[in-house]
Amino acid sequence: MRWAEGFIAVDWGTTNRRAFRIGADGRCAEEFEDRKGILAVPPGTFGAAAAEIRSRLGDLPLLLAGMVGSNRGWVEAAYVDAPAGAEEIAAHLTRLDDERAAIIPGVAFRHGTAADVMRGEEVQIVGAVAAGLVSRSGLVCHPGTHNKWVRIADGRIASFRTVMTGELFNLLKEHSILADLLAQPTEDDDSFAAGVRHGLDRDDLVAELFSVRARFLLGETKREAAAPYVSGLLIGSDLRLGLRDAPDGELVAMGRPELTRLYGSAIRIAGRSVREVDGEQAFLAGVARLAELIE
Amino acid sequence: MRWAEGFIAVDWGTTNRRAFRIGADGRCAEEFEDRKGILAVPPGTFGAAAAEIRSRLGDLPLLLAGMVGSNRGWVEAAYVDAPAGAEEIAAHLTRLDDERAAIIPGVAFRHGTAADVMRGEEVQIVGAVAAGLVSRSGLVCHPGTHNKWVRIADGRIASFRTVMTGELFNLLKEHSILADLLAQPTEDDDSFAAGVRHGLDRDDLVAELFSVRARFLLGETKREAAAPYVSGLLIGSDLRLGLRDAPDGELVAMGRPELTRLYGSAIRIAGRSVREVDGEQAFLAGVARLAELIE
Repeated sequence: MRWAEGFIAVDWGTTNRRAFRIGADGRCAEEFEDRKGILAVPPGTFGAAAAEIRSRLGDLPLLLAGMVGSNRGWVEAAYVDAPAGAEEIAAHLTRLDDERAAIIPGVAFRHGTAADVMRGEEVQIVGAVAAGLVSRSGLVCHPGTHNKWVRIADGRIASFRTVMTGELFNLLKEHSILADLLAQPTEDDDSFAAGVRHGLDRDDLVAELFSVRARFLLGETKREAAAPYVSGLLIGSDLRLGLRDAPDGELVAMGRPELTRLYGSAIRIAGRSVREVDGEQAFLAGVARLAELIE
Repeated sequence: MRWAEGFIAVDWGTTNRRAFRIGADGRCAEEFEDRKGILAVPPGTFGAAAAEIRSRLGDLPLLLAGMVGSNRGWVEAAYVDAPAGAEEIAAHLTRLDDERAAIIPGVAFRHGTAADVMRGEEVQIVGAVAAGLVSRSGLVCHPGTHNKWVRIADGRIASFRTVMTGELFNLLKEHSILADLLAQPTEDDDSFAAGVRHGLDRDDLVAELFSVRARFLLGETKREAAAPYVSGLLIGSDLRLGLRDAPDGELVAMGRPELTRLYGSAIRIAGRSVREVDGEQAFLAGVARLAELIE
Protein backbone atom coordinates (compact mmCIF):
# COMPACT_ATOMS: atom_id res chain seq x y z
CA MET A 1 0.00 0.00 0.00
CA ARG A 2 1.54 3.24 -1.13
CA TRP A 3 0.93 5.20 2.13
CA ALA A 4 3.42 2.93 3.88
CA GLU A 5 6.13 4.21 1.55
CA GLY A 6 5.69 7.74 2.79
CA PHE A 7 3.18 10.55 2.64
CA ILE A 8 2.79 14.24 3.32
CA ALA A 9 0.80 15.34 6.36
CA VAL A 10 -0.59 18.87 6.38
CA ASP A 11 -1.94 20.76 9.36
CA TRP A 12 -3.98 23.20 7.29
CA GLY A 13 -5.53 25.88 9.41
CA THR A 14 -7.39 29.10 8.84
CA THR A 15 -4.34 31.33 8.61
CA ASN A 16 -1.31 29.07 8.31
CA ARG A 17 -0.47 25.69 6.89
CA ARG A 18 2.31 23.40 7.94
CA ALA A 19 3.37 20.44 5.81
CA PHE A 20 5.54 17.47 6.84
CA ARG A 21 7.01 14.76 4.63
CA ILE A 22 6.79 11.49 6.55
CA GLY A 23 9.21 8.81 5.41
CA ALA A 24 8.73 5.03 5.25
CA ASP A 25 10.19 4.90 8.77
CA GLY A 26 7.25 7.02 10.00
CA ARG A 27 9.47 10.01 10.87
CA CYS A 28 9.35 13.56 9.60
CA ALA A 29 12.04 14.00 6.95
CA GLU A 30 11.28 17.54 5.77
CA GLU A 31 8.76 20.26 6.51
CA PHE A 32 7.73 23.81 5.76
CA GLU A 33 5.23 26.34 7.08
CA ASP A 34 3.66 29.25 5.22
CA ARG A 35 0.75 31.68 5.44
CA LYS A 36 -1.41 29.84 2.91
CA GLY A 37 -4.15 28.99 5.36
CA ILE A 38 -7.54 28.22 3.86
CA LEU A 39 -8.60 31.86 3.79
CA ALA A 40 -5.63 32.61 1.51
CA VAL A 41 -6.67 29.90 -0.98
CA PRO A 42 -9.46 30.99 -3.34
CA PRO A 43 -12.32 28.47 -3.61
CA GLY A 44 -11.71 26.08 -6.50
CA THR A 45 -7.92 26.35 -6.28
CA PHE A 46 -7.18 23.84 -3.54
CA GLY A 47 -5.98 21.34 -6.13
CA ALA A 48 -3.31 23.79 -7.21
CA ALA A 49 -2.45 24.58 -3.59
CA ALA A 50 -2.00 20.85 -2.97
CA ALA A 51 0.15 20.47 -6.09
CA GLU A 52 2.37 23.22 -4.75
CA ILE A 53 2.89 21.26 -1.54
CA ARG A 54 3.87 18.18 -3.55
CA SER A 55 6.25 20.24 -5.69
CA ARG A 56 8.10 21.17 -2.52
CA LEU A 57 8.00 17.90 -0.56
CA GLY A 58 7.54 15.18 -3.20
CA ASP A 59 4.84 13.49 -5.26
CA LEU A 60 3.26 11.63 -2.37
CA PRO A 61 -0.21 10.99 -0.92
CA LEU A 62 -1.57 13.86 1.20
CA LEU A 63 -3.16 13.42 4.61
CA LEU A 64 -4.89 16.68 5.48
CA ALA A 65 -6.03 17.88 8.89
CA GLY A 66 -7.72 21.02 10.18
CA MET A 67 -9.91 23.69 8.63
CA VAL A 68 -9.15 22.39 5.12
CA GLY A 69 -12.06 20.04 5.88
CA SER A 70 -14.45 22.86 6.81
CA ASN A 71 -17.14 24.35 4.59
CA ARG A 72 -14.60 26.97 3.50
CA GLY A 73 -11.88 24.38 2.74
CA TRP A 74 -11.14 22.00 -0.13
CA VAL A 75 -14.05 19.65 0.52
CA GLU A 76 -16.26 19.63 3.58
CA ALA A 77 -15.43 16.53 5.59
CA ALA A 78 -18.32 15.52 7.85
CA TYR A 79 -17.63 15.32 11.57
CA VAL A 80 -17.34 11.99 13.35
CA ASP A 81 -19.34 11.87 16.56
CA ALA A 82 -17.59 11.40 19.88
CA PRO A 83 -16.66 9.00 21.34
CA ALA A 84 -14.02 8.75 18.64
CA GLY A 85 -10.52 7.31 18.56
CA ALA A 86 -8.01 6.65 15.80
CA GLU A 87 -10.08 3.80 14.34
CA GLU A 88 -13.30 5.80 14.06
CA ILE A 89 -11.46 8.79 12.59
CA ALA A 90 -9.52 6.69 10.07
CA ALA A 91 -12.75 5.01 9.01
CA HIS A 92 -14.28 8.36 8.05
CA LEU A 93 -11.64 9.99 5.89
CA THR A 94 -12.89 11.96 2.92
CA ARG A 95 -10.96 10.79 -0.15
CA LEU A 96 -10.37 13.07 -3.09
CA ASP A 97 -7.81 13.86 -5.77
CA ASP A 98 -8.18 10.39 -7.31
CA GLU A 99 -7.64 8.75 -3.88
CA ARG A 100 -4.26 10.46 -3.54
CA ALA A 101 -5.47 12.81 -0.81
CA ALA A 102 -7.54 12.22 2.30
CA ILE A 103 -9.09 14.78 4.65
CA ILE A 104 -9.32 13.83 8.30
CA PRO A 105 -12.82 14.45 9.71
CA GLY A 106 -13.32 16.73 12.67
CA VAL A 107 -15.06 15.42 15.76
CA ALA A 108 -18.49 16.55 17.00
CA PHE A 109 -19.84 16.19 20.51
CA ARG A 110 -23.57 16.44 21.21
CA HIS A 111 -25.19 15.94 24.58
CA GLY A 112 -28.63 17.42 25.23
CA THR A 113 -28.44 21.06 24.16
CA ALA A 114 -24.64 20.98 24.41
CA ALA A 115 -22.85 20.87 21.09
CA ASP A 116 -19.21 21.25 20.22
CA VAL A 117 -16.85 20.67 17.31
CA MET A 118 -13.11 20.36 16.72
CA ARG A 119 -10.99 20.18 13.57
CA GLY A 120 -7.30 19.41 13.93
CA GLU A 121 -6.94 18.83 17.65
CA GLU A 122 -8.28 15.28 17.24
CA VAL A 123 -5.11 14.31 15.37
CA GLN A 124 -2.95 15.44 18.28
CA ILE A 125 -5.15 13.63 20.78
CA VAL A 126 -5.11 10.29 19.00
CA GLY A 127 -1.40 10.70 18.37
CA ALA A 128 -0.66 11.42 22.01
CA VAL A 129 -2.68 8.36 23.03
CA ALA A 130 -0.94 6.15 20.45
CA ALA A 131 2.51 7.37 21.47
CA GLY A 132 1.79 7.03 25.18
CA LEU A 133 2.26 10.79 25.72
CA VAL A 134 -1.08 10.82 27.57
CA SER A 135 -2.83 8.06 29.45
CA ARG A 136 -5.87 6.33 27.98
CA SER A 137 -8.18 8.19 30.32
CA GLY A 138 -7.93 11.73 31.69
CA LEU A 139 -8.43 15.38 30.88
CA VAL A 140 -6.46 17.27 28.25
CA CYS A 141 -6.39 21.06 27.96
CA HIS A 142 -5.58 22.09 24.39
CA PRO A 143 -5.08 25.88 24.27
CA GLY A 144 -5.14 27.83 21.03
CA THR A 145 -7.45 30.36 19.42
CA HIS A 146 -10.15 28.16 20.91
CA ASN A 147 -9.12 26.22 23.97
CA LYS A 148 -10.51 22.69 24.08
CA TRP A 149 -11.01 20.70 27.29
CA VAL A 150 -10.99 17.10 26.08
CA ARG A 151 -11.94 14.07 28.15
CA ILE A 152 -10.24 10.89 27.07
CA ALA A 153 -11.73 7.51 28.00
CA ASP A 154 -10.62 4.13 26.68
CA GLY A 155 -8.09 5.95 24.54
CA ARG A 156 -10.79 7.80 22.65
CA ILE A 157 -12.15 11.35 22.68
CA ALA A 158 -15.18 10.92 24.93
CA SER A 159 -16.40 14.52 25.19
CA PHE A 160 -15.05 18.04 25.00
CA ARG A 161 -15.85 21.69 25.50
CA THR A 162 -14.44 24.73 23.73
CA VAL A 163 -13.71 28.04 25.45
CA MET A 164 -13.00 30.98 23.10
CA THR A 165 -10.22 32.31 25.33
CA GLY A 166 -7.49 32.92 22.75
CA GLU A 167 -9.86 34.59 20.31
CA LEU A 168 -11.26 36.81 23.06
CA PHE A 169 -7.76 37.88 24.09
CA ASN A 170 -6.98 38.74 20.47
CA LEU A 171 -10.23 40.70 20.05
CA LEU A 172 -9.46 42.71 23.17
CA LYS A 173 -5.88 43.28 22.09
CA GLU A 174 -6.67 44.31 18.52
CA HIS A 175 -9.99 46.11 18.68
CA SER A 176 -11.16 46.96 22.21
CA ILE A 177 -10.87 49.90 24.56
CA LEU A 178 -8.12 47.86 26.28
CA ALA A 179 -6.02 47.65 23.10
CA ASP A 180 -3.44 50.24 24.13
CA LEU A 181 -2.97 48.57 27.52
CA LEU A 182 -2.61 45.11 25.96
CA ALA A 183 0.08 46.12 23.49
CA GLN A 184 2.66 45.13 26.11
CA PRO A 185 4.04 41.58 26.17
CA THR A 186 2.33 38.89 28.24
CA GLU A 187 4.57 37.36 30.89
CA ASP A 188 4.12 34.55 33.35
CA ASP A 189 4.68 36.92 36.27
CA ASP A 190 2.95 38.09 39.46
CA SER A 191 0.35 40.04 37.51
CA PHE A 192 -0.45 36.95 35.45
CA ALA A 193 -0.82 34.92 38.65
CA ALA A 194 -3.11 37.54 40.19
CA GLY A 195 -5.28 37.44 37.07
CA VAL A 196 -5.41 33.63 37.18
CA ARG A 197 -6.52 33.69 40.80
CA HIS A 198 -9.22 36.26 40.12
CA GLY A 199 -10.52 34.21 37.20
CA LEU A 200 -10.49 30.98 39.21
CA ASP A 201 -12.32 32.52 42.16
CA ARG A 202 -14.84 34.86 40.57
CA ASP A 203 -17.21 34.75 37.62
CA ASP A 204 -17.19 38.47 36.77
CA LEU A 205 -14.90 38.43 33.73
CA VAL A 206 -16.71 40.98 31.55
CA ALA A 207 -16.81 43.46 34.44
CA GLU A 208 -13.27 42.79 35.67
CA LEU A 209 -11.90 43.56 32.19
CA PHE A 210 -13.19 47.12 32.52
CA SER A 211 -11.77 47.38 36.03
CA VAL A 212 -8.32 46.81 34.53
CA ARG A 213 -8.75 50.01 32.55
CA ALA A 214 -10.30 51.90 35.47
CA ARG A 215 -7.45 50.96 37.83
CA PHE A 216 -4.97 52.19 35.23
CA LEU A 217 -6.83 55.49 34.69
CA LEU A 218 -6.95 56.03 38.45
CA GLY A 219 -3.24 55.35 38.80
CA GLU A 220 -3.72 52.20 40.83
CA THR A 221 -1.82 49.85 38.53
CA LYS A 222 1.04 50.16 36.10
CA ARG A 223 0.64 49.88 32.35
CA GLU A 224 2.97 46.84 32.17
CA ALA A 225 0.72 44.88 34.53
CA ALA A 226 -2.34 44.99 32.29
CA ALA A 227 -1.46 42.47 29.57
CA PRO A 228 -0.22 39.72 31.92
CA TYR A 229 -3.16 40.33 34.27
CA VAL A 230 -5.74 40.11 31.48
CA SER A 231 -4.05 37.03 30.03
CA GLY A 232 -4.15 35.42 33.47
CA LEU A 233 -7.73 36.55 34.07
CA LEU A 234 -8.93 34.96 30.82
CA ILE A 235 -7.01 31.74 31.42
CA GLY A 236 -8.15 31.55 35.04
CA SER A 237 -11.78 32.03 33.96
CA ASP A 238 -11.25 29.30 31.37
CA LEU A 239 -9.83 26.95 34.02
CA ARG A 240 -12.76 27.64 36.35
CA LEU A 241 -14.96 26.00 33.70
CA GLY A 242 -12.51 23.34 32.56
CA LEU A 243 -11.52 22.11 36.01
CA ARG A 244 -15.11 21.79 37.20
CA ASP A 245 -15.71 18.07 37.74
CA ALA A 246 -12.22 17.37 36.41
CA PRO A 247 -11.01 13.83 37.12
CA ASP A 248 -8.33 13.26 39.73
CA GLY A 249 -4.74 12.86 38.73
CA GLU A 250 -2.33 14.65 36.48
CA LEU A 251 -3.74 16.86 33.77
CA VAL A 252 -2.20 17.38 30.35
CA ALA A 253 -1.72 20.68 28.54
CA MET A 254 -1.12 19.99 24.85
CA GLY A 255 -0.42 22.35 21.99
CA ARG A 256 2.05 25.11 21.15
CA PRO A 257 4.70 25.27 23.88
CA GLU A 258 4.30 29.03 24.52
CA LEU A 259 0.62 28.41 25.31
CA THR A 260 0.96 25.14 27.23
CA ARG A 261 3.53 26.90 29.42
CA LEU A 262 1.03 29.65 30.36
CA TYR A 263 -1.83 27.20 30.87
CA GLY A 264 0.46 24.83 32.75
CA SER A 265 1.47 27.62 35.07
CA ALA A 266 -2.19 28.55 35.64
CA ILE A 267 -3.21 24.94 36.27
CA ARG A 268 -0.52 24.69 38.94
CA ILE A 269 -1.84 27.90 40.55
CA ALA A 270 -5.19 26.08 40.68
CA GLY A 271 -3.47 23.38 42.72
CA ARG A 272 -3.41 20.65 40.09
CA SER A 273 -0.43 18.84 38.61
CA VAL A 274 0.02 19.05 34.87
CA ARG A 275 2.27 17.69 32.17
CA GLU A 276 2.97 19.69 29.03
CA VAL A 277 2.92 17.83 25.71
CA ASP A 278 4.28 19.37 22.53
CA GLY A 279 1.47 19.62 19.98
CA GLU A 280 3.70 19.07 16.96
CA GLN A 281 5.10 15.85 18.36
CA ALA A 282 1.54 14.66 19.06
CA PHE A 283 0.42 15.68 15.56
CA LEU A 284 3.20 13.66 13.93
CA ALA A 285 2.33 10.65 16.09
CA GLY A 286 -1.31 11.13 15.11
CA VAL A 287 -0.81 11.20 11.36
CA ALA A 288 1.53 8.19 11.61
CA ARG A 289 -1.14 6.26 13.52
CA LEU A 290 -3.90 7.24 11.09
CA ALA A 291 -1.73 6.34 8.08
CA GLU A 292 -1.29 2.84 9.53
CA LEU A 293 -5.08 2.49 9.55
CA ILE A 294 -5.69 3.70 5.99
CA GLU A 295 -6.90 0.90 3.76
CA MET B 1 -25.35 85.18 36.11
CA ARG B 2 -25.17 84.53 32.42
CA TRP B 3 -25.81 80.73 32.58
CA ALA B 4 -29.37 81.45 33.73
CA GLU B 5 -30.01 83.21 30.42
CA GLY B 6 -29.35 80.05 28.48
CA PHE B 7 -26.46 77.79 27.58
CA ILE B 8 -25.49 74.95 25.28
CA ALA B 9 -25.15 71.46 26.74
CA VAL B 10 -23.05 68.96 24.81
CA ASP B 11 -22.98 65.21 25.29
CA TRP B 12 -19.60 64.74 23.64
CA GLY B 13 -18.70 61.11 23.31
CA THR B 14 -16.00 59.10 21.60
CA THR B 15 -17.75 58.76 18.26
CA ASN B 16 -20.67 61.19 18.29
CA ARG B 17 -21.56 64.52 19.82
CA ARG B 18 -24.98 65.88 20.55
CA ALA B 19 -25.55 69.54 21.36
CA PHE B 20 -28.66 71.15 22.89
CA ARG B 21 -29.44 74.84 23.26
CA ILE B 22 -31.14 75.28 26.63
CA GLY B 23 -33.25 78.41 26.96
CA ALA B 24 -33.82 80.66 29.99
CA ASP B 25 -36.85 78.48 30.77
CA GLY B 26 -34.54 75.47 31.20
CA ARG B 27 -35.96 73.67 28.15
CA CYS B 28 -34.24 72.46 25.01
CA ALA B 29 -34.94 74.93 22.19
CA GLU B 30 -32.75 73.48 19.45
CA GLU B 31 -30.35 70.60 19.00
CA PHE B 32 -28.14 68.75 16.55
CA GLU B 33 -26.10 65.58 16.47
CA ASP B 34 -23.08 64.80 14.33
CA ARG B 35 -20.19 62.35 14.07
CA LYS B 36 -17.60 64.75 15.54
CA GLY B 37 -16.88 62.65 18.60
CA ILE B 38 -13.56 63.34 20.30
CA LEU B 39 -11.66 60.90 18.08
CA ALA B 40 -12.68 62.98 15.05
CA VAL B 41 -11.29 66.19 16.60
CA PRO B 42 -7.50 66.52 16.23
CA PRO B 43 -5.73 67.45 19.49
CA GLY B 44 -5.38 71.22 19.78
CA THR B 45 -8.50 71.96 17.73
CA PHE B 46 -11.22 71.60 20.37
CA GLY B 47 -11.54 75.38 20.57
CA ALA B 48 -12.49 75.47 16.91
CA ALA B 49 -14.83 72.50 17.36
CA ALA B 50 -16.54 74.40 20.20
CA ALA B 51 -16.78 77.57 18.10
CA GLU B 52 -18.52 75.53 15.43
CA ILE B 53 -21.13 74.43 17.97
CA ARG B 54 -21.72 78.09 18.95
CA SER B 55 -21.99 79.10 15.30
CA ARG B 56 -24.88 76.66 14.96
CA LEU B 57 -26.70 77.13 18.28
CA GLY B 58 -25.73 80.59 19.46
CA ASP B 59 -22.93 82.41 21.29
CA LEU B 60 -23.65 80.92 24.71
CA PRO B 61 -21.74 79.26 27.55
CA LEU B 62 -20.96 75.59 26.96
CA LEU B 63 -21.54 72.83 29.49
CA LEU B 64 -19.69 69.75 28.29
CA ALA B 65 -20.20 66.15 29.37
CA GLY B 66 -18.65 62.84 28.39
CA MET B 67 -15.34 61.81 26.89
CA VAL B 68 -14.50 65.43 26.03
CA GLY B 69 -13.18 65.45 29.61
CA SER B 70 -10.94 62.40 29.09
CA ASN B 71 -7.20 62.44 28.44
CA ARG B 72 -7.99 62.38 24.72
CA GLY B 73 -10.49 65.27 24.98
CA TRP B 74 -10.26 69.05 25.19
CA VAL B 75 -8.87 69.17 28.72
CA GLU B 76 -8.66 66.27 31.14
CA ALA B 77 -11.25 66.84 33.86
CA ALA B 78 -10.32 64.95 37.03
CA TYR B 79 -12.87 62.47 38.36
CA VAL B 80 -14.93 63.22 41.45
CA ASP B 81 -14.99 60.32 43.89
CA ALA B 82 -18.25 58.59 44.71
CA PRO B 83 -20.42 59.19 46.64
CA ALA B 84 -21.24 62.10 44.36
CA GLY B 85 -24.43 63.97 43.60
CA ALA B 86 -25.22 67.13 41.68
CA GLU B 87 -23.57 69.37 44.29
CA GLU B 88 -20.25 67.48 44.31
CA ILE B 89 -20.19 67.30 40.52
CA ALA B 90 -21.02 71.00 40.06
CA ALA B 91 -18.32 71.91 42.56
CA HIS B 92 -15.66 70.21 40.43
CA LEU B 93 -16.25 71.59 36.96
CA THR B 94 -13.16 72.29 34.91
CA ARG B 95 -13.47 75.83 33.52
CA LEU B 96 -11.79 76.83 30.30
CA ASP B 97 -12.28 79.07 27.29
CA ASP B 98 -12.12 82.20 29.45
CA GLU B 99 -14.76 80.77 31.84
CA ARG B 100 -17.23 80.42 28.96
CA ALA B 101 -17.03 76.64 28.92
CA ALA B 102 -17.12 74.07 31.69
CA ILE B 103 -16.37 70.36 31.53
CA ILE B 104 -18.33 68.12 33.86
CA PRO B 105 -16.06 65.72 35.76
CA GLY B 106 -16.56 62.00 35.52
CA VAL B 107 -17.09 59.97 38.68
CA ALA B 108 -14.65 57.43 40.12
CA PHE B 109 -15.45 54.63 42.51
CA ARG B 110 -12.72 52.92 44.54
CA HIS B 111 -13.27 50.25 47.13
CA GLY B 112 -10.42 47.92 48.06
CA THR B 113 -9.02 46.62 44.78
CA ALA B 114 -12.26 47.50 43.00
CA ALA B 115 -12.06 50.56 40.78
CA ASP B 116 -14.43 51.98 38.26
CA VAL B 117 -15.02 55.16 36.30
CA MET B 118 -17.83 56.83 34.37
CA ARG B 119 -17.96 59.89 32.11
CA GLY B 120 -21.35 61.08 30.94
CA GLU B 121 -23.73 58.72 32.72
CA GLU B 122 -23.41 60.82 35.90
CA VAL B 123 -25.29 63.69 34.24
CA GLN B 124 -28.22 61.41 33.47
CA ILE B 125 -28.21 59.99 37.00
CA VAL B 126 -28.23 63.36 38.76
CA GLY B 127 -30.82 64.61 36.28
CA ALA B 128 -33.10 61.64 36.86
CA VAL B 129 -32.82 62.16 40.62
CA ALA B 130 -33.49 65.90 40.33
CA ALA B 131 -36.49 65.34 38.06
CA GLY B 132 -37.92 62.56 40.20
CA LEU B 133 -37.55 60.03 37.37
CA VAL B 134 -35.79 57.71 39.82
CA SER B 135 -36.10 57.47 43.56
CA ARG B 136 -33.33 58.77 45.83
CA SER B 137 -32.15 55.25 46.59
CA GLY B 138 -32.10 52.20 44.36
CA LEU B 139 -30.28 50.45 41.54
CA VAL B 140 -30.01 51.85 38.03
CA CYS B 141 -28.89 49.82 35.03
CA HIS B 142 -27.42 52.09 32.36
CA PRO B 143 -26.74 50.05 29.20
CA GLY B 144 -24.49 51.28 26.43
CA THR B 145 -21.10 50.32 25.05
CA HIS B 146 -20.28 49.80 28.70
CA ASN B 147 -23.22 48.95 30.89
CA LYS B 148 -23.11 50.60 34.33
CA TRP B 149 -24.90 49.26 37.39
CA VAL B 150 -25.26 52.33 39.59
CA ARG B 151 -26.38 52.33 43.19
CA ILE B 152 -28.06 55.52 44.28
CA ALA B 153 -28.25 56.43 47.95
CA ASP B 154 -29.41 59.75 49.38
CA GLY B 155 -29.87 60.98 45.82
CA ARG B 156 -26.18 60.53 45.06
CA ILE B 157 -24.13 58.01 43.07
CA ALA B 158 -22.95 55.75 45.90
CA SER B 159 -21.11 53.05 43.94
CA PHE B 160 -21.16 51.46 40.51
CA ARG B 161 -19.77 48.67 38.39
CA THR B 162 -19.19 48.57 34.65
CA VAL B 163 -19.74 45.49 32.50
CA MET B 164 -18.33 45.68 28.96
CA THR B 165 -21.37 43.97 27.45
CA GLY B 166 -22.09 46.29 24.52
CA GLU B 167 -18.45 46.46 23.48
CA LEU B 168 -18.12 42.67 23.68
CA PHE B 169 -21.20 42.21 21.50
CA ASN B 170 -19.74 44.63 18.95
CA LEU B 171 -16.35 42.88 18.99
CA LEU B 172 -18.03 39.53 18.38
CA LYS B 173 -20.22 40.97 15.65
CA GLU B 174 -17.47 42.82 13.81
CA HIS B 175 -14.37 40.71 14.21
CA SER B 176 -15.00 37.23 15.65
CA ILE B 177 -15.65 33.77 14.25
CA LEU B 178 -19.30 34.46 15.09
CA ALA B 179 -19.43 37.55 12.86
CA ASP B 180 -21.36 35.92 10.01
CA LEU B 181 -23.94 34.51 12.42
CA LEU B 182 -24.36 37.86 14.20
CA ALA B 183 -25.01 39.85 11.03
CA GLN B 184 -28.73 39.17 11.51
CA PRO B 185 -30.86 41.65 13.50
CA THR B 186 -31.27 41.25 17.25
CA GLU B 187 -34.87 40.79 18.35
CA ASP B 188 -36.54 40.52 21.72
CA ASP B 189 -37.86 37.05 20.84
CA ASP B 190 -37.78 33.49 22.19
CA SER B 191 -34.11 33.06 21.26
CA PHE B 192 -33.26 36.25 23.14
CA ALA B 193 -35.16 34.96 26.18
CA ALA B 194 -33.37 31.60 26.03
CA GLY B 195 -30.03 33.42 25.94
CA VAL B 196 -31.02 35.59 28.90
CA ARG B 197 -31.98 32.53 30.94
CA HIS B 198 -28.72 30.76 30.11
CA GLY B 199 -26.73 33.83 31.11
CA LEU B 200 -28.67 34.28 34.34
CA ASP B 201 -28.27 30.63 35.35
CA ARG B 202 -24.78 29.72 34.20
CA ASP B 203 -21.36 31.32 34.31
CA ASP B 204 -19.90 29.76 31.15
CA LEU B 205 -20.23 32.69 28.75
CA VAL B 206 -16.93 32.29 26.86
CA ALA B 207 -17.66 28.61 26.25
CA GLU B 208 -21.35 29.06 25.44
CA LEU B 209 -20.45 31.58 22.73
CA PHE B 210 -18.60 28.85 20.86
CA SER B 211 -21.50 26.44 21.37
CA VAL B 212 -23.67 28.85 19.39
CA ARG B 213 -21.43 28.29 16.40
CA ALA B 214 -21.16 24.55 16.98
CA ARG B 215 -24.93 24.11 17.20
CA PHE B 216 -25.29 25.99 13.93
CA LEU B 217 -22.59 23.93 12.18
CA LEU B 218 -24.27 20.74 13.38
CA GLY B 219 -27.67 21.90 12.11
CA GLU B 220 -29.18 22.12 15.59
CA THR B 221 -30.19 25.78 15.44
CA LYS B 222 -31.17 28.20 12.73
CA ARG B 223 -29.01 31.09 11.60
CA GLU B 224 -31.63 33.69 12.60
CA ALA B 225 -31.56 32.48 16.20
CA ALA B 226 -27.89 33.26 16.76
CA ALA B 227 -27.90 37.06 17.08
CA PRO B 228 -30.86 37.29 19.48
CA TYR B 229 -29.53 34.34 21.50
CA VAL B 230 -26.04 35.87 21.84
CA SER B 231 -27.52 39.28 22.69
CA GLY B 232 -29.65 37.64 25.38
CA LEU B 233 -26.73 35.54 26.61
CA LEU B 234 -24.53 38.60 27.07
CA ILE B 235 -27.27 40.62 28.76
CA GLY B 236 -28.25 37.68 30.99
CA SER B 237 -24.61 37.23 32.05
CA ASP B 238 -24.45 40.96 32.74
CA LEU B 239 -27.62 40.77 34.88
CA ARG B 240 -26.25 37.80 36.82
CA LEU B 241 -23.55 40.17 38.09
CA GLY B 242 -25.68 43.30 38.36
CA LEU B 243 -28.60 41.73 40.20
CA ARG B 244 -26.38 40.03 42.76
CA ASP B 245 -27.18 41.70 46.09
CA ALA B 246 -29.52 44.08 44.29
CA PRO B 247 -31.82 46.01 46.62
CA ASP B 248 -35.50 45.11 46.77
CA GLY B 249 -38.02 47.10 44.78
CA GLU B 250 -38.32 48.37 41.27
CA LEU B 251 -35.18 48.70 39.22
CA VAL B 252 -34.53 51.38 36.63
CA ALA B 253 -33.09 50.89 33.15
CA MET B 254 -31.86 54.25 31.83
CA GLY B 255 -30.32 55.18 28.51
CA ARG B 256 -31.13 54.80 24.83
CA PRO B 257 -34.65 53.41 24.47
CA GLU B 258 -33.65 50.54 22.13
CA LEU B 259 -31.22 49.32 24.79
CA THR B 260 -33.36 49.91 27.87
CA ARG B 261 -36.10 47.94 26.14
CA LEU B 262 -33.82 44.89 25.75
CA TYR B 263 -32.43 45.19 29.27
CA GLY B 264 -35.91 45.84 30.64
CA SER B 265 -37.16 42.68 28.99
CA ALA B 266 -34.23 40.69 30.41
CA ILE B 267 -34.71 42.12 33.92
CA ARG B 268 -38.34 41.00 33.82
CA ILE B 269 -37.22 37.50 32.76
CA ALA B 270 -35.05 37.58 35.89
CA GLY B 271 -38.24 38.15 37.88
CA ARG B 272 -37.67 41.77 38.82
CA SER B 273 -39.82 44.78 38.04
CA VAL B 274 -38.19 47.57 36.11
CA ARG B 275 -39.00 51.05 34.87
CA GLU B 276 -37.41 52.42 31.69
CA VAL B 277 -36.17 56.00 31.74
CA ASP B 278 -35.21 57.83 28.56
CA GLY B 279 -31.56 58.85 28.78
CA GLU B 280 -31.95 62.05 26.80
CA GLN B 281 -34.70 63.31 29.08
CA ALA B 282 -32.48 62.53 32.08
CA PHE B 283 -29.49 64.24 30.45
CA LEU B 284 -31.45 67.43 29.87
CA ALA B 285 -32.67 67.38 33.46
CA GLY B 286 -29.08 66.83 34.58
CA VAL B 287 -27.54 69.75 32.73
CA ALA B 288 -30.40 72.00 33.90
CA ARG B 289 -29.74 70.98 37.50
CA LEU B 290 -25.96 71.46 37.19
CA ALA B 291 -26.42 74.86 35.51
CA GLU B 292 -28.48 75.99 38.52
CA LEU B 293 -25.52 75.14 40.75
CA ILE B 294 -22.85 76.90 38.68
CA GLU B 295 -21.47 79.91 40.49
